Amino acid sequence: MTRKINIAVIGTGRMGSVHVKNIARSVPEANLVAICDIRLEVAQAVAKECGIQRVVKDYHELLADKNIEAVLIATSTPTHALIIKDAAAAGKQIFCEKPLALDLAEIDEALAEVEKAGVKLQVGFNRRFDKSFQKVHEIVSSGEIGHPCILHITSRDPEVPAMEFMRVSGGMFLDMTIHDFDMARFQVGEIEEVYAVGGVLIEPELKEFNDTDTNIVTLKFANGAMGAIDNSRKSVYGYDQRLEVFCSNGTAMAENKKENVAVKGNPEGFHSARVPHFFMNRYAPCYVEEVRQFIECVRDDKPTPITGKDGRAAVVLGYAAGKSLRENRPVKVSEIG
Amino acid sequence: MTRKINIAVIGTGRMGSVHVKNIARSVPEANLVAICDIRLEVAQAVAKECGIQRVVKDYHELLADKNIEAVLIATSTPTHALIIKDAAAAGKQIFCEKPLALDLAEIDEALAEVEKAGVKLQVGFNRRFDKSFQKVHEIVSSGEIGHPCILHITSRDPEVPAMEFMRVSGGMFLDMTIHDFDMARFQVGEIEEVYAVGGVLIEPELKEFNDTDTNIVTLKFANGAMGAIDNSRKSVYGYDQRLEVFCSNGTAMAENKKENVAVKGNPEGFHSARVPHFFMNRYAPCYVEEVRQFIECVRDDKPTPITGKDGRAAVVLGYAAGKSLRENRPVKVSEIG
Amino acid sequence: MTRKINIAVIGTGRMGSVHVKNIARSVPEANLVAICDIRLEVAQAVAKECGIQRVVKDYHELLADKNIEAVLIATSTPTHALIIKDAAAAGKQIFCEKPLALDLAEIDEALAEVEKAGVKLQVGFNRRFDKSFQKVHEIVSSGEIGHPCILHITSRDPEVPAMEFMRVSGGMFLDMTIHDFDMARFQVGEIEEVYAVGGVLIEPELKEFNDTDTNIVTLKFANGAMGAIDNSRKSVYGYDQRLEVFCSNGTAMAENKKENVAVKGNPEGFHSARVPHFFMNRYAPCYVEEVRQFIECVRDDKPTPITGKDGRAAVVLGYAAGKSLRENRPVKVSEIG
Amino acid sequence: MTRKINIAVIGTGRMGSVHVKNIARSVPEANLVAICDIRLEVAQAVAKECGIQRVVKDYHELLADKNIEAVLIATSTPTHALIIKDAAAAGKQIFCEKPLALDLAEIDEALAEVEKAGVKLQVGFNRRFDKSFQKVHEIVSSGEIGHPCILHITSRDPEVPAMEFMRVSGGMFLDMTIHDFDMARFQVGEIEEVYAVGGVLIEPELKEFNDTDTNIVTLKFANGAMGAIDNSRKSVYGYDQRLEVFCSNGTAMAENKKENVAVKGNPEGFHSARVPHFFMNRYAPCYVEEVRQFIECVRDDKPTPITGKDGRAAVVLGYAAGKSLRENRPVKVSEIG
Repeated sequence: MTRKINIAVIGTGRMGSVHVKNIARSVPEANLVAICDIRLEVAQAVAKECGIQRVVKDYHELLADKNIEAVLIATSTPTHALIIKDAAAAGKQIFCEKPLALDLAEIDEALAEVEKAGVKLQVGFNRRFDKSFQKVHEIVSSGEIGHPCILHITSRDPEVPAMEFMRVSGGMFLDMTIHDFDMARFQVGEIEEVYAVGGVLIEPELKEFNDTDTNIVTLKFANGAMGAIDNSRKSVYGYDQRLEVFCSNGTAMAENKKENVAVKGNPEGFHSARVPHFFMNRYAPCYVEEVRQFIECVRDDKPTPITGKDGRAAVVLGYAAGKSLRENRPVKVSEIG
Repeated sequence: MTRKINIAVIGTGRMGSVHVKNIARSVPEANLVAICDIRLEVAQAVAKECGIQRVVKDYHELLADKNIEAVLIATSTPTHALIIKDAAAAGKQIFCEKPLALDLAEIDEALAEVEKAGVKLQVGFNRRFDKSFQKVHEIVSSGEIGHPCILHITSRDPEVPAMEFMRVSGGMFLDMTIHDFDMARFQVGEIEEVYAVGGVLIEPELKEFNDTDTNIVTLKFANGAMGAIDNSRKSVYGYDQRLEVFCSNGTAMAENKKENVAVKGNPEGFHSARVPHFFMNRYAPCYVEEVRQFIECVRDDKPTPITGKDGRAAVVLGYAAGKSLRENRPVKVSEIG
Repeated sequence: MTRKINIAVIGTGRMGSVHVKNIARSVPEANLVAICDIRLEVAQAVAKECGIQRVVKDYHELLADKNIEAVLIATSTPTHALIIKDAAAAGKQIFCEKPLALDLAEIDEALAEVEKAGVKLQVGFNRRFDKSFQKVHEIVSSGEIGHPCILHITSRDPEVPAMEFMRVSGGMFLDMTIHDFDMARFQVGEIEEVYAVGGVLIEPELKEFNDTDTNIVTLKFANGAMGAIDNSRKSVYGYDQRLEVFCSNGTAMAENKKENVAVKGNPEGFHSARVPHFFMNRYAPCYVEEVRQFIECVRDDKPTPITGKDGRAAVVLGYAAGKSLRENRPVKVSEIG
Repeated sequence: MTRKINIAVIGTGRMGSVHVKNIARSVPEANLVAICDIRLEVAQAVAKECGIQRVVKDYHELLADKNIEAVLIATSTPTHALIIKDAAAAGKQIFCEKPLALDLAEIDEALAEVEKAGVKLQVGFNRRFDKSFQKVHEIVSSGEIGHPCILHITSRDPEVPAMEFMRVSGGMFLDMTIHDFDMARFQVGEIEEVYAVGGVLIEPELKEFNDTDTNIVTLKFANGAMGAIDNSRKSVYGYDQRLEVFCSNGTAMAENKKENVAVKGNPEGFHSARVPHFFMNRYAPCYVEEVRQFIECVRDDKPTPITGKDGRAAVVLGYAAGKSLRENRPVKVSEIG
């Protein structure tokens, strides 16, 4: 039988607790040996629910434990880079939630430490593990429908998050579009230039801190393809997640999944369900699969499917889009760094 | 250039006038040289609209005209058999609206005359010419998905016809299900036994003359396959016309076409259009295509795609279903004759 | 906080082990205190995986435990009735997998004991808990689209089960159609008469023991509605589970869910995924929800959503369909008992 | 009875002959009294097929005829402006195919003459008359789903036109995207700024004359909404025509119509038909409806649904997109004039 990987989870808030449950119940390739949160009682409650034996407040304890091979970092964004550096220095294999950080210098330091330590780093771009997006990727990368020409991503949240979150989110491009930038790179390849339009069409309060709730980002890819990402913070019919990769000899699309497959017919026409409202429902299997594959990569010493470079690239694209919007001109990715 | 066939239309009421317009405008293979209706003024109005030169009241005039090679009969059902006999005796090629007749003896006499005269006879089962049903037929008959196992036809009218029509319609099996019997034979083959359930669930007035508005007919085919036809006189979301031929290695379905392809999303879900309300909209291209193919068969001396035998078989199945409903038992088609 | 219900699972084979995992992980309203299997090592393996403390070989031990309030029976069908009787006599609340038994006398004895003991009994017709079928039920029972006229259920397994299973399955109507009979009763109401056609169109070996692999059962409901269930043992495009309740002012349908929502377009047209192959995937959330609701009913002393009477009715319909097929005539449900 | 409008068609090539047939057969509100083509024999052939009595070579003859109230101009683009001017001066009501002209000065002269003469001018943006796009317009303009936020138009031709046409087409933005610019204005309103990316990804020969075969144009609307149009010259699965207007409280989409509604299921999944290959099939009913409404406007002295201003605006947007692509920067519509 193949050996199990001992892993610890650092940060057991919203995303962290999902990872804890998933690893405990649905990733048999891993032993979840400990969890950690600076708010000890939060971690304890999660531990109790999932039958985790060890709970600590300070992640350094876990890094010092030779028995722990890997850590999953799901703390708040500003702490990611520091913990990555520490974990790498301690020789741990690392899975880190997105974004790596909002500061590129911090990211570069962390990635340098990861490289120096020779450990693996996977970033939590969960959507790459969605079965439908994977199927699109498989069709496109097989070449059976030619080369990519046009990418279109529709990505719309069901509701504007709370204003206290929005103020610290880093803005729409870094908080929300970042997923779509990664998806664009996954499906079509490297992006060289972006042009962003955006506005406040839903929630006037956002104007106070120069954020937007609606935007379209045009992409130029290195391979000549082009793309458009459209985002909104408020899609009343549910969490809208679609994409199309139009190619020279065909097209590959991923449509929305509806909440159920019931259809009502009446004199007004046909009526079907909304799409699921909550991103954790929509992408639930992806959160399991991303960690399962990370564990497998650690166990079999394979490169992770999403690397630190991928994590950095998406942040760079977020900055490029922001600059483009402010300056109303196309911005080369190379301008950001 | 290939020669054109001179044709005349007998009966210019609802269906007849559609045929006149279609032949005049959309069947370049034919010359529509004359039209006929016992209500001369009806025929004259149609002639004016379509630019037809010759209008007569008595169809015998047309049968006597050596210049006319083919006739299309769209008079009221009770006159079909007689006109077929006369037309066959006059050596005309014949297209006749469905049903051939409601009386089997009359049908047999007419078919005998057709055979004796050696003329062609095509019956107006227009649905066989629907592109989607033809595609299903093509898939199934190619054998690529194995042999047929289960047929399901959903065939529901948008509204209960006027009671004065219902009283003389011959009943739901002969007026409405007859199309589905023909479709079942087209898609899967000969039917040996039927079992019908039915009731009055929509329009209580129908009870007066023992008709039904809702029924399901179970079919046993000679090749071992089985089927169910479900019918209703009132489908509020439009004229519902679907079918599935489930086979040993796959399935072939024809879904409904909607009135338009717009979709609205709102907090309640997604909303799309009804299916077209009117059978003449739904099957408009079929009325052209059936006549076009008839003309082609006459011109090139090929067998017609739907024969007198097909016309008779559907009527026999209607009687078998009626008997089954009355006696509440499966009825062999051979019991009818 | 509301109290948790102590439950034990009897039988930890294929279905039983699913229930064990579900209760342990996803039914927080229950304490799974013990599991039992006559093959002790089978139960032990399941216990280990799910962290269950107590494992026994003889279910009588569990019935004797005053601490256990409810049992879930997932043993082989021939033992259901006996264990129900024993569990009822011991005052346990009972969830039993379908079918209750294949012998009506046994069922009646078991139900009598349940009634005498005043305990609850829920039968495992999991499909009633499917979100789409529930939505259809909600639409239809609200009356917003009028009264039911026509029910159509399409229910097709992906593959013919192993012959050793088929020989003891009780036949297609009792093993497979039984779910559809229950669904028909759930959606439309009591059934008074059935007519079945069936045949061996896929797997010739079935002829040896007079089973079928393809059938259509026509239903007459007490409320005047009518229905057709079509079944096949082999649907190569996946586990096909659809239904429609056509009503006097509209229709309510449940379509298939596909494995993913990717669509490929190429010169041949558009191509989308199969439906999931395995019934446990298709109905996974239902297995959780049926037990969750059972636990809730026990806790709050409410009637169970599916009763012993429902379990019996579906078996009776299975026998009626079998009799109808053998005698090729409609059979009243009252003929069976 | 309402009076009929006497109309003449000038130019009987590809589009003109379609208009002739449509008016003759399907616009009973009009009398098609004459047709005209500089290639007289072309016009004569069309006249023969459609039963038109009068055929002329020089359109001035028609303009001199007091009996003719309206003209439909379907000559080659370079002649549009001149004929409009002459027709306006002669007091004719005018329907002109798109584009009005490729030269803005010419357009302005023609529109000035139209205004001076006080005649009506309708431009042939046929797609506005598509039932599905009209339904989207109706939903959006009703306000029931809030205000528009994001427009997305997917508009892809099935095949690269012949190179001899491409060389004189005016380029992709003026030949193809022009329809989408008009659709964008129809659905959402005035456009203030555009940004275009584009490339040659399909047909290398296009590089010779600086045309593109693939592009995305980002739009900023005066009302704050934003949009993206994506175009390709080669969509192998058919003529792809979709759009979505995403609004603050919902969304309205128009999907593609497929060639038929048959679906095949097999072990690989489900397979449905392509979308129609030819724009004249896709939009056939629009060509009738646009002329019918024009005739109605003439008869009832109402403003035409599409005006000279609309025709000009779409050309301006084409130039703005071209400038944006060449200069790789967003271009204000006001820069063009």
